[in-house]
Amino acid sequence: MKKLLQVDFDFSGPFGEEMSNALLGLAESINNEAGVIWKIWTESEKDQIAGGVYLFEDEESAKAYLAMHSARLTEMGVKGVRGKIFDINMPLSTINKSPVS
Amino acid sequence: MKKLLQVDFDFSGPFGEEMSNALLGLAESINNEAGVIWKIWTESEKDQIAGGVYLFEDEESAKAYLAMHSARLTEMGVKGVRGKIFDINMPLSTINKSPVS
Repeated sequence: MKKLLQVDFDFSGPFGEEMSNALLGLAESINNEAGVIWKIWTESEKDQIAGGVYLFEDEESAKAYLAMHSARLTEMGVKGVRGKIFDINMPLSTINKSPVS
Repeated sequence: MKKLLQVDFDFSGPFGEEMSNALLGLAESINNEAGVIWKIWTESEKDQIAGGVYLFEDEESAKAYLAMHSARLTEMGVKGVRGKIFDINMPLSTINKSPVS
């Protein structure tokens, strides 16, 4: 069953175009991670936070990615990674035109 | 500019099909809220949390919805609503096959 992974953390930049340029290689590598269907990259310079919302094929791949990604962020100096794995309520999401089918 | 709203909160149910049945009317009403493009309904019975990931047309509508929804959840007895409004990094999200274009 597909799972949604929500990750966010305190972040001091880079944001916007600088983030795009700095993390291009990381984004490309994410397409090779097991079970990843898509990622929406999230950022807020105003609130000094960043993260991502991911769709995974199943719970095992979401859990494995979250463990790997949390360790990678910690190595990058990021503290307090908030990661949550959710089921998707499909009937309600379908009413609200969700892009997950 | 489109914004992503991420909401989650501690929740003791109903989950799954019972949630779908109980919150059908609420889901339908969300389609009438200003600026809502879509909502993915999230839930985890195991972790006793629920919430949603929303795409909004702009920051104003995301902020207004979050204020209204937080008040509604508080009235329903939900405590500690965690709501965050993000920009979307489009170039990185496009690399990762994001459903937001």
